[in-house]
Amino acid sequence: MSETPLQVIPLGGLGEIGKNMMAFQYGRDVLIVDAGLMFPENDMLGIDYIIPDFRYLSEQSGLRVRGILITHGHEDHTGAIQHVASAFPAPIYATPLTAGLVEVKLRQARLLDRVQLNVFNASDKIDLSPFWIETFHVCHSIPDCVGFGINTPVGLFVHTGDFKFDPTPVDRRVTDYAKLASFSARGVVALFSDSTNADRRGWTPSESVIDAAFDRVFRAAKGRVIVSSFASLISRVQQVVWVSERYGRKIAIIGTSMSENVRMALNLGYLDLPESMLISPEEARHLPPNQVTFIVTGSQGEPSAVLHRLATNNHNMLSIQAGDTVIISAHPIPGNEETVSRTINRLFQRGAQVVYDPIDSVHVSGHASQEEQRLMLNLVQPRNFVPIHGELRHLKAHRELALQVGIPDERIAVVENGTKLFFYPDGRMSIGERVPGGYVFVDGSGVGDVHTGLIREREALGRDGAVVLSAVIERGSGRILGQPEIRSFGFVASAEGAALLQSGTNLARQVLEQSGGSATHKRELVEEALSKLFYSEIRRRPKLFVTIHEV
Amino acid sequence: MSETPLQVIPLGGLGEIGKNMMAFQYGRDVLIVDAGLMFPENDMLGIDYIIPDFRYLSEQSGLRVRGILITHGHEDHTGAIQHVASAFPAPIYATPLTAGLVEVKLRQARLLDRVQLNVFNASDKIDLSPFWIETFHVCHSIPDCVGFGINTPVGLFVHTGDFKFDPTPVDRRVTDYAKLASFSARGVVALFSDSTNADRRGWTPSESVIDAAFDRVFRAAKGRVIVSSFASLISRVQQVVWVSERYGRKIAIIGTSMSENVRMALNLGYLDLPESMLISPEEARHLPPNQVTFIVTGSQGEPSAVLHRLATNNHNMLSIQAGDTVIISAHPIPGNEETVSRTINRLFQRGAQVVYDPIDSVHVSGHASQEEQRLMLNLVQPRNFVPIHGELRHLKAHRELALQVGIPDERIAVVENGTKLFFYPDGRMSIGERVPGGYVFVDGSGVGDVHTGLIREREALGRDGAVVLSAVIERGSGRILGQPEIRSFGFVASAEGAALLQSGTNLARQVLEQSGGSATHKRELVEEALSKLFYSEIRRRPKLFVTIHEV
Repeated sequence: MSETPLQVIPLGGLGEIGKNMMAFQYGRDVLIVDAGLMFPENDMLGIDYIIPDFRYLSEQSGLRVRGILITHGHEDHTGAIQHVASAFPAPIYATPLTAGLVEVKLRQARLLDRVQLNVFNASDKIDLSPFWIETFHVCHSIPDCVGFGINTPVGLFVHTGDFKFDPTPVDRRVTDYAKLASFSARGVVALFSDSTNADRRGWTPSESVIDAAFDRVFRAAKGRVIVSSFASLISRVQQVVWVSERYGRKIAIIGTSMSENVRMALNLGYLDLPESMLISPEEARHLPPNQVTFIVTGSQGEPSAVLHRLATNNHNMLSIQAGDTVIISAHPIPGNEETVSRTINRLFQRGAQVVYDPIDSVHVSGHASQEEQRLMLNLVQPRNFVPIHGELRHLKAHRELALQVGIPDERIAVVENGTKLFFYPDGRMSIGERVPGGYVFVDGSGVGDVHTGLIREREALGRDGAVVLSAVIERGSGRILGQPEIRSFGFVASAEGAALLQSGTNLARQVLEQSGGSATHKRELVEEALSKLFYSEIRRRPKLFVTIHEV
Repeated sequence: MSETPLQVIPLGGLGEIGKNMMAFQYGRDVLIVDAGLMFPENDMLGIDYIIPDFRYLSEQSGLRVRGILITHGHEDHTGAIQHVASAFPAPIYATPLTAGLVEVKLRQARLLDRVQLNVFNASDKIDLSPFWIETFHVCHSIPDCVGFGINTPVGLFVHTGDFKFDPTPVDRRVTDYAKLASFSARGVVALFSDSTNADRRGWTPSESVIDAAFDRVFRAAKGRVIVSSFASLISRVQQVVWVSERYGRKIAIIGTSMSENVRMALNLGYLDLPESMLISPEEARHLPPNQVTFIVTGSQGEPSAVLHRLATNNHNMLSIQAGDTVIISAHPIPGNEETVSRTINRLFQRGAQVVYDPIDSVHVSGHASQEEQRLMLNLVQPRNFVPIHGELRHLKAHRELALQVGIPDERIAVVENGTKLFFYPDGRMSIGERVPGGYVFVDGSGVGDVHTGLIREREALGRDGAVVLSAVIERGSGRILGQPEIRSFGFVASAEGAALLQSGTNLARQVLEQSGGSATHKRELVEEALSKLFYSEIRRRPKLFVTIHEV
């Protein structure tokens, strides 16, 4: 047996480690797991989304990427596929629903005819020598999720993907306990396991608790019921279908992503929804309110999605009326708390009854809590343990659980994105250097050009607005030609601000008349004077743009 | 008995109703309860803070404000006192600690010699005819909190302030059950009660559960312990003192507001901290790590406070070292979740062990949960019920609890800020019109001039930055004089952007050379051309400021 180690690098994420992409490298052969994006935090102004920094891979010459495996269809695992597929011309492997979602992205990026997209089913095996992958089903909050047993020349590695151990999932497909246990019998070099809920005690409730909550809400509802959830949460749509059927309601779907996902799930057989039950929003209008359920997008309060438009009475097909019941069947993603709260309050204002967790159990997490994480560790019994999919604090909490089930501290690696991990044939793990493996901002068509400095500039502009002043002086004499022009934006309201801006123009004129030196020097004097004026008058510091033309 | 109704108006808040200020009006006599501020939400760019809109009161002529009563010393109940005291020259009433905090604000605003600040103790009575107020102690997350029984010509009203029913509070002063029960015997026209936690089941844990959590953490800590909490949470400081004493640690305090509050609490006798235990940060440096506890500001991840500076290794007195234990004894205030998470992750990165709820119970809420809210309703047995201090969704949830304890729907008023409520001598309540009673943005020294439009402008600037171009043309000929000048800020990184900005200048020159018409017309053409160029090149839409001087 050679002494070449297997090298693993978690990539991507925004705080979260290995969430979006991981690379397994043996010699010059590489296996990529996931190709996801992250959404920007509130203070990352103007950023559209964030992709993993995979320069470490793309800059190595002679690398052979054998395949790109996708664990499931969520954006944080698929959303960077066009960037990754462009950089590495390797076949992509995904389960049917995941492949359907990835196909849409490849088509949009005009990559579909250049990329080989292979569909597999959980329990299938994939040969990508020197890697040989055993796939297994896991429960999560979208159908068709898998984890991977990755056989390498160095031994067997297990990657859980995002998972929970739901004993009664909506689609009746439980996480593959038997396969996980069989791995342990063969010996697992390392387990890479989802840490998202590592600070939550107990066991994440089953999807089926939602049936009871939906039943309570639908039984009490006298008017229309409007359910908002994640468009990818097909099992939730199934639960809405079941309860609607029970209470004699038809289903209308509003929102592009929800309609598309439901259509795809129907085509692929992931959704049991009789054709007669599905009606158009227009047909719904002609039914009595207590015979209609709407399923809509926007559970995160996103400004362009349906729920926010309903909350602000700004949707062309539907408006909230007294007697409506709105169910928000989702939790706010961290950072969205404010917008979700505001949306709920506005829906109440319009007369709806709004039901959300904790008012009733209309949503559960898709990630394992501590007892499930301990169970995963005990089923797989890995020699080494690498917590992934979580912020550093979640990884640290997951480490505590691993210590409790008896994994020694020196066999646990809590590392950040870009840190190389080496696994040797004798089962040893060592932690290597850290390479660029963080994240890359995407803004418009610019990938990676926006850095922190530019974000700080945007913040400065956003804080107190901008004032633009330009003037023309005669070369030589320094005489002011024409009128200095001043404009402001986001600085003061026009009514109150007119006098202040006029003072600014007068002051600029005065400074220009009294000062000598170069145009640059004069510009600096004018900026300084304006800055002082605005701060003393109104205690604000707008960004100043002063231009002095010399002609 | 006259037929004049008592009129009550909740004011202020940001989503939250009656949180910051309420007015009780009988004829021309007015009683104000609280004068607080709200902190801006993440998307209210550049706003320093928000105060209640009390124009409805200040614009009524001949009004006699009899007094301003403060329930407790938190910013959201005291932080607008300088604005309210300036508008209404009335005596202020507060308990000793609250008065101490208010005094600081009045001094800073140079109002101290113009305002009469009266100190009372819980259970004291205050005569502000036609109002006669019975004060009573409530538990919350700062000492010296009160609620008010407000006797009026129309009957008795009860205002809870912020409260919880802690059976074992740190200062041993429980909420005044007896007084609340005695109100019910006399008949209460209406109860105004804190709704903050109306969607939380059960009973908010007692402050005393924190003792056990602190004990666990301190027993395990081998190095220094650094506790961060709200500066006003004096009882938490007391708990840190107790556990530090038990484990032979001295206490050093870092952070202005924490130091000031501790000093004030010591002077007023609210804190039991032996002089020998309190040491300076400098002295702490010379003690073994396991003999020191630091108490610091910054539990919300505020950039200028101590904890964030420790997380970013940017504090002049202290830096995190391996072996440190950091306790975050606070929950993130809604909107601060991201900054708190980031701070925790960075502290872990620097090698600290970080303990926060839910890792251990190192913080509890200061507000009543559902069982306590039901208890309050049952103790007071009001004829009418007005949920306050919460977003609309919390008020709606609180209404459900009131229905459960038997208050009929028509006697419950869920209203928004600025809605007039009328109470008649026969006990009837009616809901009147809505007056301006929302909130007012304070930005710098501007009070109320920043409106939504200006915030939208700031957002536009923050999203893709700004590009400023100015040029000079000769009047008549239209010939370009000198060079058009272009600058950008927050738009593209300077290295990558130089060529793009040069293209912009060239394009502007070309448009100016080829177009006729007025300078205004030319400006519009240049703006349009630049906008198209930048969008097609990089898919961004910076805010454009184009100026064409004609000389």
